[in-house]
Amino acid sequence: MRDAYHEELDSIGDGLVEMARLTGSAIGRATTAILDADLKLAESVIEADQKVDELQHDLEARAIALLARQQPVATDLRIVVTSLRMSADLERSGDLAQHVAKLARLRFPSRAVPQDLHATILEMGQLAQRLMAKAAEVIITKDVDLALQLEQDDDDMDLLHRTLFQHLIDERWKHGIETAVDVTLLGRYYERYADHAVAVAKRVVYLVTGEHADELQAGIEPVTGVEGA
Amino acid sequence: MRDAYHEELDSIGDGLVEMARLTGSAIGRATTAILDADLKLAESVIEADQKVDELQHDLEARAIALLARQQPVATDLRIVVTSLRMSADLERSGDLAQHVAKLARLRFPSRAVPQDLHATILEMGQLAQRLMAKAAEVIITKDVDLALQLEQDDDDMDLLHRTLFQHLIDERWKHGIETAVDVTLLGRYYERYADHAVAVAKRVVYLVTGEHADELQAGIEPVTGVEGA
Repeated sequence: MRDAYHEELDSIGDGLVEMARLTGSAIGRATTAILDADLKLAESVIEADQKVDELQHDLEARAIALLARQQPVATDLRIVVTSLRMSADLERSGDLAQHVAKLARLRFPSRAVPQDLHATILEMGQLAQRLMAKAAEVIITKDVDLALQLEQDDDDMDLLHRTLFQHLIDERWKHGIETAVDVTLLGRYYERYADHAVAVAKRVVYLVTGEHADELQAGIEPVTGVEGA
Repeated sequence: MRDAYHEELDSIGDGLVEMARLTGSAIGRATTAILDADLKLAESVIEADQKVDELQHDLEARAIALLARQQPVATDLRIVVTSLRMSADLERSGDLAQHVAKLARLRFPSRAVPQDLHATILEMGQLAQRLMAKAAEVIITKDVDLALQLEQDDDDMDLLHRTLFQHLIDERWKHGIETAVDVTLLGRYYERYADHAVAVAKRVVYLVTGEHADELQAGIEPVTGVEGA
Protein backbone atom coordinates (compact mmCIF):
# COMPACT_ATOMS: atom_id res chain seq x y z
CA MET A 1 0.00 0.00 0.00
CA ARG A 2 1.22 3.46 -0.87
CA ASP A 3 1.66 6.00 1.87
CA ALA A 4 0.00 9.40 1.95
CA TYR A 5 3.18 11.02 0.71
CA HIS A 6 3.48 8.99 -2.46
CA GLU A 7 -0.25 9.32 -3.02
CA GLU A 8 0.22 13.07 -2.97
CA LEU A 9 3.14 12.81 -5.42
CA ASP A 10 0.97 10.68 -7.72
CA SER A 11 -1.85 13.18 -7.51
CA ILE A 12 0.54 15.92 -8.64
CA GLY A 13 1.37 13.73 -11.64
CA ASP A 14 -2.36 13.29 -12.30
CA GLY A 15 -2.75 17.08 -12.23
CA LEU A 16 -0.02 17.47 -14.86
CA VAL A 17 -1.68 14.87 -17.09
CA GLU A 18 -5.02 16.66 -16.72
CA MET A 19 -3.38 20.00 -17.65
CA ALA A 20 -1.82 18.36 -20.73
CA ARG A 21 -5.18 16.84 -21.67
CA LEU A 22 -6.89 20.24 -21.44
CA THR A 23 -4.25 22.18 -23.38
CA GLY A 24 -4.11 19.42 -26.01
CA SER A 25 -7.84 19.70 -26.48
CA ALA A 26 -7.56 23.51 -26.50
CA ILE A 27 -5.03 23.64 -29.35
CA GLY A 28 -7.14 21.22 -31.40
CA ARG A 29 -10.31 23.23 -30.86
CA ALA A 30 -8.54 26.56 -31.37
CA THR A 31 -7.25 25.29 -34.71
CA THR A 32 -10.76 24.29 -35.78
CA ALA A 33 -12.06 27.68 -34.60
CA ILE A 34 -9.54 29.63 -36.64
CA LEU A 35 -9.93 27.51 -39.78
CA ASP A 36 -13.74 27.58 -39.65
CA ALA A 37 -14.06 31.12 -38.24
CA ASP A 38 -16.19 29.62 -35.47
CA LEU A 39 -16.73 32.34 -32.89
CA LYS A 40 -18.50 30.18 -30.32
CA LEU A 41 -15.78 27.57 -30.39
CA ALA A 42 -13.11 30.27 -30.11
CA GLU A 43 -14.84 31.74 -27.10
CA SER A 44 -15.15 28.37 -25.42
CA VAL A 45 -11.38 27.84 -25.82
CA ILE A 46 -10.64 31.30 -24.42
CA GLU A 47 -12.89 30.65 -21.44
CA ALA A 48 -11.58 27.13 -20.80
CA ASP A 49 -8.03 28.38 -20.28
CA GLN A 50 -9.09 29.56 -16.83
CA LYS A 51 -9.43 25.93 -15.82
CA VAL A 52 -5.80 25.27 -16.85
CA ASP A 53 -4.65 28.27 -14.81
CA GLU A 54 -6.62 27.04 -11.80
CA LEU A 55 -5.10 23.59 -12.12
CA GLN A 56 -1.64 25.14 -12.20
CA HIS A 57 -2.23 27.24 -9.10
CA ASP A 58 -3.67 24.24 -7.31
CA LEU A 59 -0.79 22.00 -8.38
CA GLU A 60 1.83 24.54 -7.34
CA ALA A 61 0.22 25.02 -3.96
CA ARG A 62 0.22 21.28 -3.38
CA ALA A 63 3.82 20.90 -4.55
CA ILE A 64 4.99 23.63 -2.20
CA ALA A 65 2.95 22.20 0.68
CA LEU A 66 4.56 18.84 -0.01
CA LEU A 67 8.04 20.39 0.09
CA ALA A 68 7.26 22.09 3.39
CA ARG A 69 5.58 19.13 5.06
CA GLN A 70 7.57 16.17 3.79
CA GLN A 71 10.92 17.78 2.97
CA PRO A 72 11.77 15.27 0.28
CA VAL A 73 15.37 14.72 -0.79
CA ALA A 74 17.10 13.12 -3.77
CA THR A 75 14.75 11.74 -6.42
CA ASP A 76 11.54 12.79 -4.68
CA LEU A 77 12.77 16.37 -4.40
CA ARG A 78 13.70 16.34 -8.06
CA ILE A 79 10.23 15.08 -8.97
CA VAL A 80 8.50 17.89 -7.09
CA VAL A 81 10.74 20.64 -8.49
CA THR A 82 10.43 19.23 -12.01
CA SER A 83 6.66 19.08 -11.63
CA LEU A 84 6.63 22.80 -10.88
CA ARG A 85 8.49 23.44 -14.13
CA MET A 86 6.25 21.14 -16.14
CA SER A 87 3.17 22.89 -14.81
CA ALA A 88 4.66 26.22 -15.98
CA ASP A 89 5.21 24.75 -19.48
CA LEU A 90 1.67 23.43 -19.59
CA GLU A 91 0.17 26.69 -18.37
CA ARG A 92 2.06 28.54 -21.11
CA SER A 93 0.96 26.11 -23.81
CA GLY A 94 -2.60 26.77 -22.68
CA ASP A 95 -1.98 30.50 -23.18
CA LEU A 96 -0.71 29.84 -26.69
CA ALA A 97 -3.83 27.83 -27.60
CA GLN A 98 -5.82 30.74 -26.22
CA HIS A 99 -3.86 33.17 -28.45
CA VAL A 100 -4.89 31.13 -31.51
CA ALA A 101 -8.52 31.30 -30.38
CA LYS A 102 -8.27 35.04 -29.70
CA LEU A 103 -7.00 35.62 -33.22
CA ALA A 104 -10.00 33.65 -34.54
CA ARG A 105 -12.28 35.90 -32.46
CA LEU A 106 -10.49 39.08 -33.54
CA ARG A 107 -10.94 38.33 -37.24
CA PHE A 108 -14.48 36.92 -37.00
CA PRO A 109 -16.54 36.79 -39.24
CA SER A 110 -13.53 36.78 -41.58
CA ARG A 111 -11.13 33.88 -41.63
CA ALA A 112 -7.61 34.67 -40.43
CA VAL A 113 -6.06 31.89 -42.53
CA PRO A 114 -6.27 32.02 -46.35
CA GLN A 115 -7.47 28.87 -48.09
CA ASP A 116 -4.08 27.96 -49.54
CA LEU A 117 -2.60 27.80 -46.02
CA HIS A 118 -5.44 25.83 -44.44
CA ALA A 119 -3.69 22.50 -44.92
CA THR A 120 -0.45 23.73 -43.33
CA ILE A 121 -2.16 25.32 -40.33
CA LEU A 122 -4.35 22.24 -39.91
CA GLU A 123 -1.24 20.08 -39.91
CA MET A 124 0.49 22.35 -37.38
CA GLY A 125 -2.59 22.20 -35.13
CA GLN A 126 -2.85 18.43 -35.38
CA LEU A 127 0.85 17.94 -34.77
CA ALA A 128 0.71 20.27 -31.76
CA GLN A 129 -2.19 18.27 -30.33
CA ARG A 130 -0.39 14.99 -30.99
CA LEU A 131 2.81 16.28 -29.35
CA MET A 132 0.87 17.19 -26.23
CA ALA A 133 -0.91 13.81 -26.19
CA LYS A 134 2.51 12.14 -26.34
CA ALA A 135 3.83 14.44 -23.61
CA ALA A 136 0.93 13.34 -21.40
CA GLU A 137 1.74 9.70 -22.19
CA VAL A 138 5.39 10.33 -21.29
CA ILE A 139 4.30 11.75 -17.91
CA ILE A 140 2.24 8.61 -17.28
CA THR A 141 4.61 5.96 -18.64
CA LYS A 142 7.99 7.69 -18.13
CA ASP A 143 8.91 6.13 -21.47
CA VAL A 144 12.26 7.68 -22.43
CA ASP A 145 12.12 6.41 -26.02
CA LEU A 146 8.75 8.04 -26.55
CA ALA A 147 10.13 11.26 -25.05
CA LEU A 148 13.03 11.28 -27.51
CA GLN A 149 10.55 10.66 -30.34
CA LEU A 150 8.84 13.92 -29.39
CA GLU A 151 11.95 15.87 -30.23
CA GLN A 152 11.90 14.43 -33.70
CA ASP A 153 8.21 15.28 -34.10
CA ASP A 154 9.23 18.79 -33.16
CA ASP A 155 11.52 18.83 -36.19
CA ASP A 156 8.38 18.22 -38.28
CA MET A 157 6.85 21.27 -36.63
CA ASP A 158 9.92 23.30 -37.58
CA LEU A 159 9.56 22.11 -41.18
CA LEU A 160 5.89 23.12 -41.23
CA HIS A 161 6.88 26.45 -39.76
CA ARG A 162 9.38 26.92 -42.58
CA THR A 163 6.79 25.96 -45.18
CA LEU A 164 4.54 28.64 -43.75
CA PHE A 165 7.32 31.23 -44.06
CA GLN A 166 8.09 30.18 -47.60
CA HIS A 167 4.45 30.86 -48.49
CA LEU A 168 4.68 34.24 -46.81
CA ILE A 169 7.77 35.44 -48.59
CA ASP A 170 6.77 33.97 -51.95
CA GLU A 171 6.36 36.89 -54.31
CA ARG A 172 3.00 35.49 -55.39
CA TRP A 173 1.61 36.13 -51.87
CA LYS A 174 -1.64 37.97 -52.51
CA HIS A 175 -3.32 38.11 -49.12
CA GLY A 176 -1.94 41.41 -47.95
CA ILE A 177 0.03 42.45 -44.91
CA GLU A 178 -2.56 41.99 -42.17
CA THR A 179 -2.97 38.33 -43.08
CA ALA A 180 0.82 37.97 -43.30
CA VAL A 181 1.07 39.34 -39.76
CA ASP A 182 -1.65 36.98 -38.54
CA VAL A 183 -0.02 33.97 -40.18
CA THR A 184 3.41 34.95 -38.80
CA LEU A 185 2.02 35.08 -35.26
CA LEU A 186 0.05 31.86 -35.71
CA GLY A 187 3.19 30.06 -36.85
CA ARG A 188 4.99 31.35 -33.82
CA TYR A 189 2.20 30.20 -31.46
CA TYR A 190 2.23 26.64 -32.81
CA GLU A 191 6.02 26.47 -32.76
CA ARG A 192 6.21 27.67 -29.17
CA TYR A 193 3.36 25.33 -28.17
CA ALA A 194 5.36 22.41 -29.57
CA ASP A 195 8.48 23.62 -27.74
CA HIS A 196 6.63 23.46 -24.43
CA ALA A 197 5.30 19.95 -25.13
CA VAL A 198 8.86 18.85 -25.93
CA ALA A 199 10.16 20.57 -22.79
CA VAL A 200 7.69 18.59 -20.67
CA ALA A 201 8.89 15.33 -22.20
CA LYS A 202 12.55 16.33 -21.77
CA ARG A 203 11.99 17.02 -18.10
CA VAL A 204 10.62 13.50 -17.66
CA VAL A 205 13.77 12.15 -19.35
CA TYR A 206 15.84 14.12 -16.92
CA LEU A 207 13.89 12.69 -13.99
CA VAL A 208 14.26 9.12 -15.20
CA THR A 209 17.85 9.17 -16.41
CA GLY A 210 19.39 12.13 -14.58
CA GLU A 211 20.63 13.23 -17.98
CA HIS A 212 19.36 16.00 -20.19
CA ALA A 213 17.62 14.71 -23.32
CA ASP A 214 20.11 16.54 -25.54
CA GLU A 215 22.95 14.46 -24.17
CA LEU A 216 21.13 11.25 -25.00
CA GLN A 217 20.58 12.41 -28.52
CA ALA A 218 24.08 13.40 -29.51
CA GLY A 219 24.44 13.05 -33.24
CA ILE A 220 20.88 14.01 -34.14
CA GLU A 221 21.17 17.42 -35.70
CA PRO A 222 18.17 19.64 -34.92
CA VAL A 223 16.36 21.51 -37.68
CA THR A 224 16.67 25.11 -36.57
CA GLY A 225 13.64 27.36 -36.34
CA VAL A 226 13.10 30.39 -38.52
CA GLU A 227 13.97 32.90 -35.84
CA GLY A 228 17.49 31.62 -35.65
CA ALA A 229 18.95 29.68 -38.57
CA MET B 1 26.46 37.80 11.43
CA ARG B 2 24.58 35.84 8.80
CA ASP B 3 24.68 32.07 8.84
CA ALA B 4 25.79 29.92 5.90
CA TYR B 5 22.20 29.22 5.01
CA HIS B 6 21.19 32.84 4.59
CA GLU B 7 24.44 33.57 2.81
CA GLU B 8 23.50 30.88 0.29
CA LEU B 9 20.01 32.39 -0.10
CA ASP B 10 21.60 35.80 -0.69
CA SER B 11 23.97 34.37 -3.25
CA ILE B 12 20.98 32.95 -5.17
CA GLY B 13 19.56 36.48 -5.17
CA ASP B 14 22.89 37.79 -6.46
CA GLY B 15 22.76 35.22 -9.25
CA LEU B 16 19.32 36.44 -10.29
CA VAL B 17 20.51 40.04 -10.34
CA GLU B 18 23.49 39.04 -12.46
CA MET B 19 21.20 37.20 -14.90
CA ALA B 20 18.97 40.28 -15.14
CA ARG B 21 22.01 42.48 -15.73
CA LEU B 22 23.24 40.23 -18.55
CA THR B 23 19.86 39.93 -20.30
CA GLY B 24 19.28 43.68 -19.91
CA SER B 25 22.59 44.36 -21.60
CA ALA B 26 21.79 41.73 -24.24
CA ILE B 27 18.49 43.31 -25.31
CA GLY B 28 20.14 46.74 -25.52
CA ARG B 29 23.01 45.44 -27.63
CA ALA B 30 20.72 43.27 -29.78
CA THR B 31 18.62 46.35 -30.52
CA THR B 32 21.70 48.30 -31.58
CA ALA B 33 22.84 45.34 -33.70
CA ILE B 34 19.53 45.11 -35.54
CA LEU B 35 19.18 48.86 -36.10
CA ASP B 36 22.80 49.27 -37.30
CA ALA B 37 23.06 45.90 -39.08
CA ASP B 38 26.14 45.25 -36.95
CA LEU B 39 27.10 41.59 -37.45
CA LYS B 40 29.88 41.50 -34.87
CA LEU B 41 27.68 42.94 -32.19
CA ALA B 42 24.88 40.51 -33.12
CA GLU B 43 27.27 37.58 -32.85
CA SER B 44 28.57 38.73 -29.49
CA VAL B 45 24.98 38.83 -28.16
CA ILE B 46 24.27 35.36 -29.54
CA GLU B 47 27.40 33.99 -27.92
CA ALA B 48 26.88 35.75 -24.60
CA ASP B 49 23.54 34.01 -24.04
CA GLN B 50 25.47 30.91 -23.07
CA LYS B 51 26.62 32.71 -19.94
CA VAL B 52 22.99 33.36 -18.96
CA ASP B 53 22.15 29.69 -19.48
CA GLU B 54 25.12 28.65 -17.35
CA LEU B 55 24.09 31.01 -14.60
CA GLN B 56 20.61 29.53 -14.67
CA HIS B 57 21.87 25.95 -14.42
CA ASP B 58 24.19 26.91 -11.62
CA LEU B 59 21.48 28.80 -9.78
CA GLU B 60 19.00 25.95 -10.12
CA ALA B 61 21.50 23.42 -8.87
CA ARG B 62 22.23 25.56 -5.84
CA ALA B 63 18.54 26.14 -5.15
CA ILE B 64 17.79 22.43 -5.28
CA ALA B 65 20.82 21.64 -3.10
CA LEU B 66 19.55 24.20 -0.62
CA LEU B 67 16.12 22.56 -0.56
CA ALA B 68 17.68 19.15 0.02
CA ARG B 69 20.19 20.22 2.65
CA GLN B 70 18.34 22.86 4.61
CA GLN B 71 14.73 21.86 4.00
CA PRO B 72 13.43 25.38 4.43
CA VAL B 73 9.79 26.01 5.31
CA ALA B 74 7.41 28.99 5.15
CA THR B 75 8.97 32.18 3.75
CA ASP B 76 12.39 30.67 3.05
CA LEU B 77 10.83 27.85 1.06
CA ARG B 78 8.78 30.38 -0.90
CA ILE B 79 11.93 32.37 -1.67
CA VAL B 80 13.76 29.35 -3.07
CA VAL B 81 10.82 28.15 -5.19
CA THR B 82 10.19 31.68 -6.47
CA SER B 83 13.87 32.05 -7.34
CA LEU B 84 13.61 28.98 -9.55
CA ARG B 85 10.74 30.62 -11.41
CA MET B 86 12.51 33.94 -11.74
CA SER B 87 15.57 32.23 -13.16
CA ALA B 88 13.34 30.60 -15.79
CA ASP B 89 11.90 34.02 -16.72
CA LEU B 90 15.37 35.51 -16.98
CA GLU B 91 16.71 32.61 -19.03
CA ARG B 92 13.80 33.04 -21.43
CA SER B 93 14.31 36.80 -21.73
CA GLY B 94 17.92 36.05 -22.65
CA ASP B 95 16.66 33.77 -25.43
CA LEU B 96 14.44 36.56 -26.73
CA ALA B 97 17.34 39.03 -26.84
CA GLN B 98 19.24 36.35 -28.72
CA HIS B 99 16.35 36.00 -31.21
CA VAL B 100 16.62 39.73 -31.98
CA ALA B 101 20.37 39.32 -32.55
CA LYS B 102 19.82 36.25 -34.74
CA LEU B 103 17.42 38.20 -36.93
CA ALA B 104 20.08 40.92 -37.30
CA ARG B 105 22.56 38.23 -38.34
CA LEU B 106 20.11 36.57 -40.74
CA ARG B 107 19.45 39.83 -42.61
CA PHE B 108 23.03 41.13 -42.57
CA PRO B 109 24.27 43.09 -44.51
CA SER B 110 20.69 44.36 -45.00
CA ARG B 111 18.83 46.03 -42.20
CA ALA B 112 15.82 44.12 -40.89
CA VAL B 113 14.08 47.30 -39.72
CA PRO B 114 13.03 49.97 -42.24
CA GLN B 115 14.04 53.54 -41.44
CA ASP B 116 10.51 54.73 -40.62
CA LEU B 117 10.28 52.10 -37.85
CA HIS B 118 13.73 52.72 -36.34
CA ALA B 119 12.40 55.08 -33.70
CA THR B 120 9.70 52.64 -32.58
CA ILE B 121 12.04 49.65 -32.40
CA LEU B 122 14.66 51.76 -30.62
CA GLU B 123 12.05 52.79 -28.09
CA MET B 124 10.93 49.17 -27.59
CA GLY B 125 14.55 48.10 -27.08
CA GLN B 126 15.25 50.90 -24.62
CA LEU B 127 12.04 50.26 -22.72
CA ALA B 128 12.82 46.53 -22.56
CA GLN B 129 16.26 47.28 -21.16
CA ARG B 130 14.81 49.73 -18.64
CA LEU B 131 12.17 47.23 -17.55
CA MET B 132 14.87 44.64 -16.87
CA ALA B 133 17.01 47.19 -14.99
CA LYS B 134 14.00 47.93 -12.79
CA ALA B 135 13.31 44.22 -12.33
CA ALA B 136 16.89 43.81 -11.08
CA GLU B 137 16.39 46.74 -8.73
CA VAL B 138 13.18 45.15 -7.45
CA ILE B 139 15.06 41.90 -6.72
CA ILE B 140 17.64 43.89 -4.73
CA THR B 141 15.36 46.34 -2.92
CA LYS B 142 12.13 44.31 -2.79
CA ASP B 143 10.41 47.63 -3.43
CA VAL B 144 6.74 46.78 -4.06
CA ASP B 145 5.90 50.24 -5.43
CA LEU B 146 8.65 49.98 -8.02
CA ALA B 147 7.39 46.51 -8.94
CA LEU B 148 3.90 47.85 -9.56
CA GLN B 149 5.39 50.66 -11.64
CA LEU B 150 6.85 48.00 -13.95
CA GLU B 151 3.40 46.84 -14.87
CA GLN B 152 2.54 50.32 -16.01
CA ASP B 153 5.75 50.53 -18.05
CA ASP B 154 4.59 47.33 -19.64
CA ASP B 155 1.47 49.16 -20.83
CA ASP B 156 3.83 51.51 -22.69
CA MET B 157 5.36 48.47 -24.35
CA ASP B 158 1.88 47.33 -25.41
CA LEU B 159 1.26 50.77 -26.89
CA LEU B 160 4.54 50.64 -28.83
CA HIS B 161 3.61 47.17 -30.01
CA ARG B 162 0.29 48.52 -31.26
CA THR B 163 2.03 51.41 -33.02
CA LEU B 164 4.21 48.87 -34.79
CA PHE B 165 1.16 46.93 -35.94
CA GLN B 166 -0.56 50.07 -37.13
CA HIS B 167 2.46 50.77 -39.34
CA LEU B 168 2.33 47.23 -40.64
CA ILE B 169 -1.33 47.25 -41.62
CA ASP B 170 -1.23 50.80 -42.97
CA GLU B 171 -2.02 50.58 -46.66
CA ARG B 172 0.98 52.79 -47.36
CA TRP B 173 3.31 50.00 -46.11
CA LYS B 174 5.89 49.68 -48.85
CA HIS B 175 8.53 47.38 -47.38
CA GLY B 176 7.13 44.08 -48.59
CA ILE B 177 6.11 40.92 -46.82
CA GLU B 178 9.48 39.65 -45.61
CA THR B 179 10.09 42.85 -43.70
CA ALA B 180 6.53 42.71 -42.36
CA VAL B 181 7.22 39.20 -41.07
CA ASP B 182 10.50 40.33 -39.47
CA VAL B 183 8.87 43.32 -37.81
CA THR B 184 5.98 41.18 -36.56
CA LEU B 185 8.39 38.74 -34.92
CA LEU B 186 10.54 41.56 -33.52
CA GLY B 187 7.48 43.15 -31.95
CA ARG B 188 6.58 39.83 -30.40
CA TYR B 189 10.11 39.32 -29.01
CA TYR B 190 10.15 42.71 -27.28
CA GLU B 191 6.65 42.26 -25.93
CA ARG B 192 7.45 38.83 -24.50
CA TYR B 193 10.76 40.11 -23.11
CA ALA B 194 8.86 42.82 -21.25
CA ASP B 195 6.34 40.25 -19.99
CA HIS B 196 9.16 38.25 -18.40
CA ALA B 197 10.67 41.33 -16.75
CA VAL B 198 7.24 42.15 -15.32
CA ALA B 199 6.80 38.54 -14.20
CA VAL B 200 10.07 38.74 -12.25
CA ALA B 201 8.90 41.88 -10.47
CA LYS B 202 5.48 40.36 -9.77
CA ARG B 203 7.08 37.35 -8.16
CA VAL B 204 8.99 39.63 -5.80
CA VAL B 205 5.70 41.32 -4.89
CA TYR B 206 4.25 37.92 -4.13
CA LEU B 207 7.22 37.09 -1.92
CA VAL B 208 6.98 40.35 0.00
CA THR B 209 3.23 40.67 0.38
CA GLY B 210 1.96 37.13 -0.11
CA GLU B 211 -0.46 38.64 -2.62
CA HIS B 212 -0.36 38.50 -6.38
CA ALA B 213 0.44 41.87 -7.94
CA ASP B 214 -2.87 41.86 -9.84
CA GLU B 215 -4.79 41.89 -6.59
CA LEU B 216 -2.86 44.93 -5.37
CA GLN B 217 -3.65 46.74 -8.57
CA ALA B 218 -7.39 46.28 -8.76
CA GLY B 219 -8.90 49.14 -10.69
CA ILE B 220 -5.98 49.69 -13.06
CA GLU B 221 -7.21 48.44 -16.41
CA PRO B 222 -4.48 46.74 -18.45
CA VAL B 223 -3.90 47.68 -22.07
CA THR B 224 -4.28 44.38 -23.87
CA GLY B 225 -1.71 43.11 -26.34
CA VAL B 226 -2.39 42.73 -30.03
CA GLU B 227 -2.64 38.96 -29.91
CA GLY B 228 -5.68 39.10 -27.70
CA ALA B 229 -7.65 42.33 -27.61
